[in-house]
Amino acid sequence: MQSSKQFTIEAGKGLALSVKKGQFVRVINTYGTQVVDTWAFSEEDTESLLSMEHCREVLQRIIFEPGDQLITNRYQPILKFTEDTSPGGHDTLIAACSQEMYIHAGRKEYHANCRDNLINAVKPFGIKIGITPSPWNLFMLAPIRESGLIDYVRPTSKPGDYVEVCAEMDCIMAFSACPDEIYPTNGGDGTPVDAHVILLNKNSVK
Amino acid sequence: MQSSKQFTIEAGKGLALSVKKGQFVRVINTYGTQVVDTWAFSEEDTESLLSMEHCREVLQRIIFEPGDQLITNRYQPILKFTEDTSPGGHDTLIAACSQEMYIHAGRKEYHANCRDNLINAVKPFGIKIGITPSPWNLFMLAPIRESGLIDYVRPTSKPGDYVEVCAEMDCIMAFSACPDEIYPTNGGDGTPVDAHVILLNKNSVK
Repeated sequence: MQSSKQFTIEAGKGLALSVKKGQFVRVINTYGTQVVDTWAFSEEDTESLLSMEHCREVLQRIIFEPGDQLITNRYQPILKFTEDTSPGGHDTLIAACSQEMYIHAGRKEYHANCRDNLINAVKPFGIKIGITPSPWNLFMLAPIRESGLIDYVRPTSKPGDYVEVCAEMDCIMAFSACPDEIYPTNGGDGTPVDAHVILLNKNSVK
Repeated sequence: MQSSKQFTIEAGKGLALSVKKGQFVRVINTYGTQVVDTWAFSEEDTESLLSMEHCREVLQRIIFEPGDQLITNRYQPILKFTEDTSPGGHDTLIAACSQEMYIHAGRKEYHANCRDNLINAVKPFGIKIGITPSPWNLFMLAPIRESGLIDYVRPTSKPGDYVEVCAEMDCIMAFSACPDEIYPTNGGDGTPVDAHVILLNKNSVK
């Protein structure tokens, strides 16, 4: 029997969850247009975390695929990428947005951003964020063209498409429904929307 | 008139230097086979540092080229990439090697590594390293093939080839003559060698 619990990542906001080894997490692109920046920290040692640059090294790919074992900066398996109903291509190259990005883009006022969403979401778990770890940008497409140019394009996910991972260690996962309305990657229409997360026990005792 | 000072990055070891705004730094691949992991931290705020994921975002390329302005995680210019006599292609995708990498590769004993070299080199400057920032892997080639595979190949630099940058702010630059003998990226013959750094004042008062 399965048991599950659903959480909302509110539009432009963050969420963090404690995920136990063996639990599955589905990140749902409820409306199809929303990028979800995703992080995972070992519960035991929060300086051990899902690392894009270590996954790229070991997997020898910039894009991760179902079946891939995703590792920490200590080369420990932290998430198994189990399923993807979206067209895939989830970006691993680009920084989380931050207040400084919006200032760089010409904004004068405070703008909600994935860095602050991460900081606030993981604070109750005792995790302090210094330099922002590179996020796994679910549903974000930043393909490299033949010329070498990184292109920023709208997500091609359908409403309800999801990415599923299984925790390979007890961890804190954090998500940000990216508030960016500047790059086209997040739908490009200026409206961040809700996304959802389902925490799933697939093999709970009958 | 120019004034200059030369430093040795000993084979498999690290080096850090204080570099003032306007000074030029040449990283020399003295024997042509040596990868040099490179970092730069703002002297004023050492949590502001050269960031691969922010440079890729703004430059829209995974490979940086002469003329590029390289930025920090706060979107501030920190280095201008002024010259490259090597064939280029300096990797921005792959993590610095660490003790955990060598354990993952089957080693049992302590192995010199770029992470520890960074930690030790910047300690005298009051910089503490938690999660290792992604290095700019000078002279390291990790091209992405058409299949999407990241390939690891030997450096194609000639002895004496160099990369030159100009500091756009006062900063601490750190270097590691990578001790890796597992991947072919570092020459692949199991012998890390010395590299050199020249700190250059091009427009000093005559």
